[in-house]
Amino acid sequence: MSNAYFSPDPTQQKVAADLYATVHDLPLICPHGHVDPRLFASADYKFGSPVELLIIPDHYIFRMMYSQGIPLESLGIPRQDSGAVERDHRKIWQTVCDHWYLMRGTPTYLWLRDELRDVFGITQKLNSANAQAIYDAIEAQLQLPEFQPRRLFERFNIEVLATTDAATDTLAHHQAIRTSGWSGRIIPTFRPDAVVNVDMVGWRQNIEKLAEVSGIVVTNYPTYIQALEQRRAFFKSMGATATDHAAMTAYTEVLSAAEADVIFQRALAGTASADDARRFTGHMLIEMARMSSDDGLVMQLHIGSFRNHNPLIMERFGRDMGADIPISSEFTRNLKPLLDRFGNHPALKVVLFNLDETTYSRELAPLAGHYPILRLGPPWWFFDSLNGMRRFFDEVVETAGVYNTAGFNDDTRAYPSIPARHALWRRAAADWLAGMLVRDLIDTDDAYEMIRALAYDLAKATYNL
Amino acid sequence: MSNAYFSPDPTQQKVAADLYATVHDLPLICPHGHVDPRLFASADYKFGSPVELLIIPDHYIFRMMYSQGIPLESLGIPRQDSGAVERDHRKIWQTVCDHWYLMRGTPTYLWLRDELRDVFGITQKLNSANAQAIYDAIEAQLQLPEFQPRRLFERFNIEVLATTDAATDTLAHHQAIRTSGWSGRIIPTFRPDAVVNVDMVGWRQNIEKLAEVSGIVVTNYPTYIQALEQRRAFFKSMGATATDHAAMTAYTEVLSAAEADVIFQRALAGTASADDARRFTGHMLIEMARMSSDDGLVMQLHIGSFRNHNPLIMERFGRDMGADIPISSEFTRNLKPLLDRFGNHPALKVVLFNLDETTYSRELAPLAGHYPILRLGPPWWFFDSLNGMRRFFDEVVETAGVYNTAGFNDDTRAYPSIPARHALWRRAAADWLAGMLVRDLIDTDDAYEMIRALAYDLAKATYNL
Amino acid sequence: MSNAYFSPDPTQQKVAADLYATVHDLPLICPHGHVDPRLFASADYKFGSPVELLIIPDHYIFRMMYSQGIPLESLGIPRQDSGAVERDHRKIWQTVCDHWYLMRGTPTYLWLRDELRDVFGITQKLNSANAQAIYDAIEAQLQLPEFQPRRLFERFNIEVLATTDAATDTLAHHQAIRTSGWSGRIIPTFRPDAVVNVDMVGWRQNIEKLAEVSGIVVTNYPTYIQALEQRRAFFKSMGATATDHAAMTAYTEVLSAAEADVIFQRALAGTASADDARRFTGHMLIEMARMSSDDGLVMQLHIGSFRNHNPLIMERFGRDMGADIPISSEFTRNLKPLLDRFGNHPALKVVLFNLDETTYSRELAPLAGHYPILRLGPPWWFFDSLNGMRRFFDEVVETAGVYNTAGFNDDTRAYPSIPARHALWRRAAADWLAGMLVRDLIDTDDAYEMIRALAYDLAKATYNL
Repeated sequence: MSNAYFSPDPTQQKVAADLYATVHDLPLICPHGHVDPRLFASADYKFGSPVELLIIPDHYIFRMMYSQGIPLESLGIPRQDSGAVERDHRKIWQTVCDHWYLMRGTPTYLWLRDELRDVFGITQKLNSANAQAIYDAIEAQLQLPEFQPRRLFERFNIEVLATTDAATDTLAHHQAIRTSGWSGRIIPTFRPDAVVNVDMVGWRQNIEKLAEVSGIVVTNYPTYIQALEQRRAFFKSMGATATDHAAMTAYTEVLSAAEADVIFQRALAGTASADDARRFTGHMLIEMARMSSDDGLVMQLHIGSFRNHNPLIMERFGRDMGADIPISSEFTRNLKPLLDRFGNHPALKVVLFNLDETTYSRELAPLAGHYPILRLGPPWWFFDSLNGMRRFFDEVVETAGVYNTAGFNDDTRAYPSIPARHALWRRAAADWLAGMLVRDLIDTDDAYEMIRALAYDLAKATYNL
Repeated sequence: MSNAYFSPDPTQQKVAADLYATVHDLPLICPHGHVDPRLFASADYKFGSPVELLIIPDHYIFRMMYSQGIPLESLGIPRQDSGAVERDHRKIWQTVCDHWYLMRGTPTYLWLRDELRDVFGITQKLNSANAQAIYDAIEAQLQLPEFQPRRLFERFNIEVLATTDAATDTLAHHQAIRTSGWSGRIIPTFRPDAVVNVDMVGWRQNIEKLAEVSGIVVTNYPTYIQALEQRRAFFKSMGATATDHAAMTAYTEVLSAAEADVIFQRALAGTASADDARRFTGHMLIEMARMSSDDGLVMQLHIGSFRNHNPLIMERFGRDMGADIPISSEFTRNLKPLLDRFGNHPALKVVLFNLDETTYSRELAPLAGHYPILRLGPPWWFFDSLNGMRRFFDEVVETAGVYNTAGFNDDTRAYPSIPARHALWRRAAADWLAGMLVRDLIDTDDAYEMIRALAYDLAKATYNL
Repeated sequence: MSNAYFSPDPTQQKVAADLYATVHDLPLICPHGHVDPRLFASADYKFGSPVELLIIPDHYIFRMMYSQGIPLESLGIPRQDSGAVERDHRKIWQTVCDHWYLMRGTPTYLWLRDELRDVFGITQKLNSANAQAIYDAIEAQLQLPEFQPRRLFERFNIEVLATTDAATDTLAHHQAIRTSGWSGRIIPTFRPDAVVNVDMVGWRQNIEKLAEVSGIVVTNYPTYIQALEQRRAFFKSMGATATDHAAMTAYTEVLSAAEADVIFQRALAGTASADDARRFTGHMLIEMARMSSDDGLVMQLHIGSFRNHNPLIMERFGRDMGADIPISSEFTRNLKPLLDRFGNHPALKVVLFNLDETTYSRELAPLAGHYPILRLGPPWWFFDSLNGMRRFFDEVVETAGVYNTAGFNDDTRAYPSIPARHALWRRAAADWLAGMLVRDLIDTDDAYEMIRALAYDLAKATYNL
């Protein structure tokens, strides 16, 4: 087995390899991510071209190309105005390979390298010269029956995979998976952002859709809450064990039902202010915590992204186009109203994710090392990387221990990269534990239990899987 | 000698071990901590049960247990309302040992492991099976004359130990130590928070007590200042060399005597606002710096803790119950009014402690690397750990050097853990210096002088001991 | 070749040494710094005493001495009021050497050590005993023709060196260099802070000087802009490829020409408020970006220093006396108005420098990994150090790659320390790449291309040199 990602120190490396060997074959627990359930809805689903699979959905790749002056149009990213973009996927692939050196040192470089090697058997490094031959090799394999998503699910040894679904989703694909008789466990996650954040484009229409799918006429705050509870129950009946919430800040505030309704009515009338939106989201986070304390769905909070920072990109290409930039975050004061209400609840679990690493040791670890409801999600987004993981471990565990963390989740829409991502986490965890062991901070028995917890047990336990 | 806590690299490890060997036997300087002086007041003092000694006073341990759903009542933590809590100390000890794995990777795990090994001769790891046998072993030893606190003081090779005492304390235990004829050097530290922070519960009564112990009728700001000066003189006469001040932020502001008196009168009348409290504390920090510049007491500032964050815990168990959470801190602007007045004073020393590591390299090291009065205290609280020390050294020394740091202090109420804590610091410092030496950043002579400074000299010199 | 600054791990160290060997002899690119062009204006320029060369201009050294109570007067720092200061340079040198141990662990210690060794052939460590002998050795060499600045420029293998010059500078020394026939490439950089920041002492006079040197009567905002454009064109004609801008924060805001003129008129009248100054600077940063998008000068932004923090030092010794303290910075929101206007510009380059390392991974790398105009300057000031570089690489590259960084610049006024500074960067980069290679994050070919990019290519390309 390779020693990739391990310390070069021979003593530590040997320990890391031994630890990793014990978790290498454990099934993958994928409690949070963005894989499209459509992939599994039919036994006949086929992936598109290599570019459709690997480039167009991957904002990690095209944002880096864009940062060096390569137009998104030349990478085939569809324009909102249906303007012309490159349609020749071989040409797009060539452009990416010509500039692949830009990705050196990034996790994306490693994920794609390891994915091409382990899933497609391609061991060459992408470059201008081999671009077309590698395209051929990927394209050919994507036609094979063993590259059908359900077959890959089995080959990847995934035990459970959670998707992320709008509160208004009918979960038709999930329904199709269930009735198909296929045994792969694909479960939905309840994500109500689009009906909670009243300043989101389309919120009014989303409320109409919420009413439609829930069968509840939503005219005010009480019916709105009712409809949300109806959807949560439906998601739970479809296998969901968790919800997911994104907010720019961790601000929470208790509003009275009357205050909440005033803002809700303003939002329906299209007159809600930015401050209304902020307060309503802050209130709804507490309200969602209340619902989770009732129905047992684990509550995930993703905090700290300034979405769609570049107006030109937003206008031309829409959301999620690599122009989301983190901001500094605060939890100690912002979460207090939520914690005052539910921080000591015996049945609630809230998993925190965030993009400001300074909060790890200063706020998140002390909070999670005290409040029974809190768990810390693995390093997120830009920090789902070797250095990000090392910093997370080094800054969190001394105060919160490992048992207040939530293990790993891959959080990806790039389905075939899932094994590479879990392997990177497992190797990083093994190397970190090896570093502890060789410094006599833990003993061998501890290390073996901890690697299993980090690689498998904690994710499963945190999400009640 | 063990190589615990050293790098696994053989070259660095060897250097670290050589450096550590030269300071391993140096006496311990303990210029800041929370050991109860009562322990030393009588030659007959006996510790209570293992749980009374090791668990009930240690919020590092019970906060972690609580974070995983173990009620504080089951750990014997006394309730404010005298409600029922577990009284069977063997049962409490069993609960802690059953869940001891939660502490893996934390400094508390290491401190207790090393303390049990070096003070009690217990080398087994705590677990469910051996819990009662280990309880027996500790309990038996605590009865022995050599476990009397004064004997441990000598065995631990403590040169001086400073306690932390309220401004209104009569220092009766300190007086008893002095008159007992025992030669151990136990000195008080002047901590006036409870008479300075006008928003603290009980401030009004504390002022009455201040008047009582000082013999000065405190009716206004001038008499208040007089009483504080009287107490400082008394503490100094009892051996104190330092004061200690805790504040949520480093905010300082010069108030005129008239402005200060207005707030003081409002506080006496119970009508001071939150802003009054903030400004008065900010003013009093400068006033305390003035007094220190006169009487030579070293001024310690502990900044950045949001105390008693969990209202349920505060109501049920009171203060200092593991629910203090750090916040982000600012020093460059906040300390400026104090520094404008006293930053260049030739005789004043101010030692800064804080819980926001981002300030190390950005604000604290640049400030300490310029202002003559400033010294940086060692990593505090959550950061009194191997990673915390490594980050402190790596982020502070390049800008401030080591000679603007204050060496180590253990800041503990867990008396028998003191040797383990100093050993961890000394080993961490030795390993860090070894890393510098093997990279040719310092030479061997430098390294030997620096390890001694960090292990012994700097603490002694900073606190005028 | 020495293995200084490399990891002690034999595998990594060998790789680092191999990588470093390939860039060790590459010419030095110095696109940003503060060397006085006067040094090169005449072939006969002679340095002053060792103290004039190495101590009096180096605030890194005298700030540390001052922090330990050594008066700046005793180090020969000239007083604003022409009060008495030490004039015996041998005595000053002795004082510095007596306290040289204070610098242990700092980059200044390494720079001077390596400079003395490599430029002056002095291999002893500075101390009280050898101070005078070393003074003799330096003094003697400074008289030799080969220590003339132009000869050192050639010996140092500098390919290009940019100075930093006020917008109102006539560039007379640069003119003299050009007409002298000497082939060394010394180019100016346009730094307009003193005519942009309306709250700067002397701004009014600087505007008069701007009018004088530009030949444009500056009475309002349009003529002010005209004059600035004239100066930029002049600097460009003199070889400048970049501008440089310092601001306490990254705040940007678009003002209408009318709004800008209102503030400009208030500033001329001496009635501009602090808020006026802030808004005007924020506006002018965008205006400077507009000019750069027209004339192609690379725009450098240095953010985050609270200048002249100590009023006593400011009053007695003036600006730049080691009393500049960083503050926390924000880029995601502050730069948005500038980025909204020019973030996607195909020809503009903006190089960001800052003193708040928390922004590396949270804001700067995500911004530079998306916006085509952004590049990240190397770690600045307090962070131009081994740990600073390691943190920069570890926190930036995973998100922004290395190709969105600007390589190295030495940013120094200490001319003979230039080779030592570049060598430290190149060694740090080699060691960091070696660490990546031995962990299988990059392959050997990548590593060789990346070390060359970091050591040479990126600086040259970023600054169009």
